[in-house]
Amino acid sequence: MVIDSHEHIMFPIKMQLDKMDAAVVDKTVLFCTAPHPEKAGTLKELEEEMAALNKILAGSNTKEDNISRLKKNIAEVAEAVRAYPDRFLGFGAVPLGMELEETEKWIDTQITSNSLYGIGEFTPGNERQIRQLDTVFQALMDTRIYPVWVHTFHPVTMEGIKLLMSLCEKYPDIPVIFGHLGGSNWMDVIKFAKEHDNVYLDLSAAFASIATKIALAELPERCLYSSDAPYGEPYLYRQLIEFVSPDKRTAEMALGENISRLLELY
Amino acid sequence: MVIDSHEHIMFPIKMQLDKMDAAVVDKTVLFCTAPHPEKAGTLKELEEEMAALNKILAGSNTKEDNISRLKKNIAEVAEAVRAYPDRFLGFGAVPLGMELEETEKWIDTQITSNSLYGIGEFTPGNERQIRQLDTVFQALMDTRIYPVWVHTFHPVTMEGIKLLMSLCEKYPDIPVIFGHLGGSNWMDVIKFAKEHDNVYLDLSAAFASIATKIALAELPERCLYSSDAPYGEPYLYRQLIEFVSPDKRTAEMALGENISRLLELY
Repeated sequence: MVIDSHEHIMFPIKMQLDKMDAAVVDKTVLFCTAPHPEKAGTLKELEEEMAALNKILAGSNTKEDNISRLKKNIAEVAEAVRAYPDRFLGFGAVPLGMELEETEKWIDTQITSNSLYGIGEFTPGNERQIRQLDTVFQALMDTRIYPVWVHTFHPVTMEGIKLLMSLCEKYPDIPVIFGHLGGSNWMDVIKFAKEHDNVYLDLSAAFASIATKIALAELPERCLYSSDAPYGEPYLYRQLIEFVSPDKRTAEMALGENISRLLELY
Repeated sequence: MVIDSHEHIMFPIKMQLDKMDAAVVDKTVLFCTAPHPEKAGTLKELEEEMAALNKILAGSNTKEDNISRLKKNIAEVAEAVRAYPDRFLGFGAVPLGMELEETEKWIDTQITSNSLYGIGEFTPGNERQIRQLDTVFQALMDTRIYPVWVHTFHPVTMEGIKLLMSLCEKYPDIPVIFGHLGGSNWMDVIKFAKEHDNVYLDLSAAFASIATKIALAELPERCLYSSDAPYGEPYLYRQLIEFVSPDKRTAEMALGENISRLLELY
């Protein structure tokens, strides 16, 4: 089974299903999103759409804004999963900056009650926000353990990645997916993952095929195929993995088996 | 004709030709290189190979080291072009930090005498080095105008890109290829290119297919297909352009016509 382990929900949902069909992808793990760049055909339209994301990445929204936006976005994912249970499963966002008890309540009511499979994408815009992730990890230990998906490409720096690595060491039972393989810091991320069993490598936003190739050669059992659609194309990212995998077995693991095992989909 | 407009020379050269054949690429524009990551199969081997590049990117080599290394590397490209004139053409490096007269002499003896078609890749590690590019642009005005290929992905920042943009405005007759489309700053780079006819967009190191798609939609006549091999795969980058181009005509321009026109290969 081929599973795209990270796509943002697109509207209309038929666009998402069409892209999955074109790439021969059986299931997709859907994530919430504020901007919808799939609607943009020109630079101007895209800029207008991305202004929302940039504001969030810069961490300049209020906590209340974030909470009401994230609830709405989670509801969109939950609805898509209910409409197409054979094609989609979902991850849900958790706001940063809430107290422990509030965070635990969010995980119960927004994640577990919606039958979601993990939490994220966290896109921490500064180191303070990466530290706030500690509360989220603690809440998972108290409620229910879910994999945590964190964006580790620009604008997250190596300093931010190191803080995330220390959380992986502090909470060895919580699986952490390093989104986009650490960006320019991919060699450090692969090296760290080799020494920490709870670290998974997301292969989207690959700017160097050689990085994907080395990740697959070094850790075939922890690489996860994803397209990050609508930013990437499911078809092209599947091709990338099939092209650079050292053998067919490695490609099969990265294209579906690893995420199935992680999310216990059997 | 399909032309990969930016690959680093690989050893053995048969590997380069094989990758071109697999991607059905007619010609490749070869660039010098210090590291040879194509030799690496594991992370450890790659780290050893890349230590050389990191030292250069950090700008910590002496001027003399750089000069003797670059002469050797240019000779490797010139030799490959002589051996396979139907498959390769070359760009040559120019050291930063030389005086104007010394730079002009280098362009005459290392670039023009070797029948090369352009200069670069410049990978300025700091803003001082981007300012040193001014001497190179001035030397081109005094000797012979060649396109200049500049790395604009990480570690080059938006500040560095802005300095490069001001050189493009100061020397409007010199074509400048923004390598890797500005990295995370791709929207700013596309916007600038729309207002400046001497700016070309290199499509390698694409971490978001959506960036490539918007570049092709906005400036089909100035997009250049390249793989940045051995960091990227010629086959996959060709697929990317064919997949996201708005129409077949745009893909043809990006895959060969634009670079043919720029380098006057007719």
